[in-house]
Amino acid sequence: MSNPFRIAIAGLGTVGGGVVKALAARGDELSRRAGRTLALTAVSARDKNKARGFDLPGWTDDPLSLARGDADLVVELIGGDEGIARALVETALANGKHVVTANKALLARHGRALADLAESKGVTLKFEAAAAGGIPIVKALREGLIAHGVDAVKGILNGTCNYILTEMESSGRSFAEVLKEAQAKGYAEADPTLDVGGGDTAHKLALLASVAFGTAPNFDAISVEGIEHITADDIAFASEFGFRIKLLGVARRVGDAIDQKVHPAMVKVRTPLANVSGAANGVMVDAGEAGSFFFSGRGAGEAPTASAVIADIVEAASGAVSPVFGRPAASLLPLKPADGKAAISPWYLRFEVLDVPGVLAAIAGNLADAGVSIESMIQRVRAPGAPVAIVMITHETSQACVERALKAIGPSDKVRARPCMIPMEAA
Amino acid sequence: MSNPFRIAIAGLGTVGGGVVKALAARGDELSRRAGRTLALTAVSARDKNKARGFDLPGWTDDPLSLARGDADLVVELIGGDEGIARALVETALANGKHVVTANKALLARHGRALADLAESKGVTLKFEAAAAGGIPIVKALREGLIAHGVDAVKGILNGTCNYILTEMESSGRSFAEVLKEAQAKGYAEADPTLDVGGGDTAHKLALLASVAFGTAPNFDAISVEGIEHITADDIAFASEFGFRIKLLGVARRVGDAIDQKVHPAMVKVRTPLANVSGAANGVMVDAGEAGSFFFSGRGAGEAPTASAVIADIVEAASGAVSPVFGRPAASLLPLKPADGKAAISPWYLRFEVLDVPGVLAAIAGNLADAGVSIESMIQRVRAPGAPVAIVMITHETSQACVERALKAIGPSDKVRARPCMIPMEAA
Repeated sequence: MSNPFRIAIAGLGTVGGGVVKALAARGDELSRRAGRTLALTAVSARDKNKARGFDLPGWTDDPLSLARGDADLVVELIGGDEGIARALVETALANGKHVVTANKALLARHGRALADLAESKGVTLKFEAAAAGGIPIVKALREGLIAHGVDAVKGILNGTCNYILTEMESSGRSFAEVLKEAQAKGYAEADPTLDVGGGDTAHKLALLASVAFGTAPNFDAISVEGIEHITADDIAFASEFGFRIKLLGVARRVGDAIDQKVHPAMVKVRTPLANVSGAANGVMVDAGEAGSFFFSGRGAGEAPTASAVIADIVEAASGAVSPVFGRPAASLLPLKPADGKAAISPWYLRFEVLDVPGVLAAIAGNLADAGVSIESMIQRVRAPGAPVAIVMITHETSQACVERALKAIGPSDKVRARPCMIPMEAA
Repeated sequence: MSNPFRIAIAGLGTVGGGVVKALAARGDELSRRAGRTLALTAVSARDKNKARGFDLPGWTDDPLSLARGDADLVVELIGGDEGIARALVETALANGKHVVTANKALLARHGRALADLAESKGVTLKFEAAAAGGIPIVKALREGLIAHGVDAVKGILNGTCNYILTEMESSGRSFAEVLKEAQAKGYAEADPTLDVGGGDTAHKLALLASVAFGTAPNFDAISVEGIEHITADDIAFASEFGFRIKLLGVARRVGDAIDQKVHPAMVKVRTPLANVSGAANGVMVDAGEAGSFFFSGRGAGEAPTASAVIADIVEAASGAVSPVFGRPAASLLPLKPADGKAAISPWYLRFEVLDVPGVLAAIAGNLADAGVSIESMIQRVRAPGAPVAIVMITHETSQACVERALKAIGPSDKVRARPCMIPMEAA
């Protein structure tokens, strides 16, 4: 253990602080597991003078200098898919330094090129913290569940969305109310778009799909829908049918193509994903003949995310230089997008309509014309004169058929608001 | 990839067959992930002529010869903690070959010595398949959740027991009836002792505790209780209180000691462990500040177990030679057993008593004398003249206090059968 493994950290926010603290508190144990003394030798962040409660060894104002110094490994916790974060990771790898990052956006967009660079330099690029916080799911997919191939990965990957949906269910309040409260408590960002719009989930899904299927990340192929339009009514109706609404990132093998999508889904109340509550994350992996495996835990926050970063650091220090996405970058397959609209499932549909004769007949007719058949229906009158909610569960049908029907139904002057369509997960 | 990684397999039962088939079906993909061509070069099993549906390369009648041949890695799937399995693993390691095994009994009893041997020879000894079948929990504990230390591991680790308990709950039938059916269907062994008595769970727990806490496996320190005495009544009463009965293996840090026990426990119906159904396994890890993480999936059977074996083979082939139990064997701490009877929880107690005056008063008096206070009680009359079931939930109290009370109550001629005591999990 005479030759210390030198670590430089760029970014000392919540996660960076957590990494520094864990290295300080358990450095001996972690060094023993790594087989080398872990030494934090340099740090950089925006504000040197911020009160942090820990020492700042080897401070530098210029994070890029960490990529040129004597560190063996650079931890990138700055964030963002371009700018300084990208420059830091590229420079560090180019200079033969291992890199550990929690930067999902960077890897979702530039993962393939960065993997090429890392492997050409014989160093490793690790990103466990980028996918589901503390849950060791990247490791499980990259190294654990490889024997029979993966058919599908389905994850609750954004704690903010799951917290909002859980609160909406338990309190009956609207999306807007719960979001506002979450922002006041610091659980949601002032600009919540990346979370509630599904973009953050999509970044993470791109990485999970890559390690699961041995394909290069293909963020642009992901269809993304957020939770902004989910109403308290939708959640209450879901509950009546024995379902919960969750924002899922789903990547499925369809023949030789991969369908990647982020969308709200109805999941049956007794299934593992339905029972992922509050800010937690959960991932279901369908591993072919080996069956389904489920992983859950805290997907964000100081200690869970630092836990994933530390695991990557220890692994890099131990000398394990494995391919970034499980397969050598040169042999990563291009991800061929599947036709996501061909995916078959039952659908939940909600229409807000005027309480006048003929509306239901018109909707039912449009559905029939598009080949969508109804399994069950609830029509609920609200206050006199207010729009009526019509909720339907369809038999199994494709997204394309449902969209065709809704395109015909939407323009009617009897239909208020955009109809809501949510797929129902089989299991 | 010009230098193939030579694999020899001893034992071609369910799991061995699964490994051969997966290597045949996905050898190219797995070789790519390993960075070396995986080549199955030799096999041994009891009966060469058994119909297996796959070729037998390099057959030998003598499994020990695999440890002396030209294999880089020997897969031991013979089983048993002594005899040929132990000799094979020891000889293979001594000859500088990597070893992958699913043999929980061997490692639970001789893990420390085998780890010493492996590390002294610079080879690796891997055992993902020995703990929870296909669930990559050894990897998660050894490499993933190391940053903040583990406070506790709680697992449903035996699919046979969980299948029996699940069937008892859904059908209301007795342990004996369900066991008999499980044996007829091949879900339980002709001699079910190792499963239903908790021994198999204890073997697995010893391994999980070792990787979680950095201690040498200490199988003999585990207190073990099986599910043979659980009645349909216990399961029905549990349900009334909002709990399910599961056979848990629990390893908890208590100061500088570790409490390891296997026993039936009441778990709340909405918790992840309670929702592990049928033959599945599930493990909850309390990872200090990082929070709790849950893992579930198939814990036995051909493909899931082969999945874990294959993951270990690929990792060994990739050149990762990490410490067997996460820490170098020389620095594994001795596992100091905690006083398990000091563990505090609410308890479920069931007494079968004669329907005569004064019985309840006597039981209540004995409990009070031992310092056990009652939170709630159900007394249920059965047929006239038949024993009456008295069920109590205690306030939090130690196992030692409950045992003291039961020792006083047991000998009464008004009490039929051994009183049943089951701890209730807090979460």
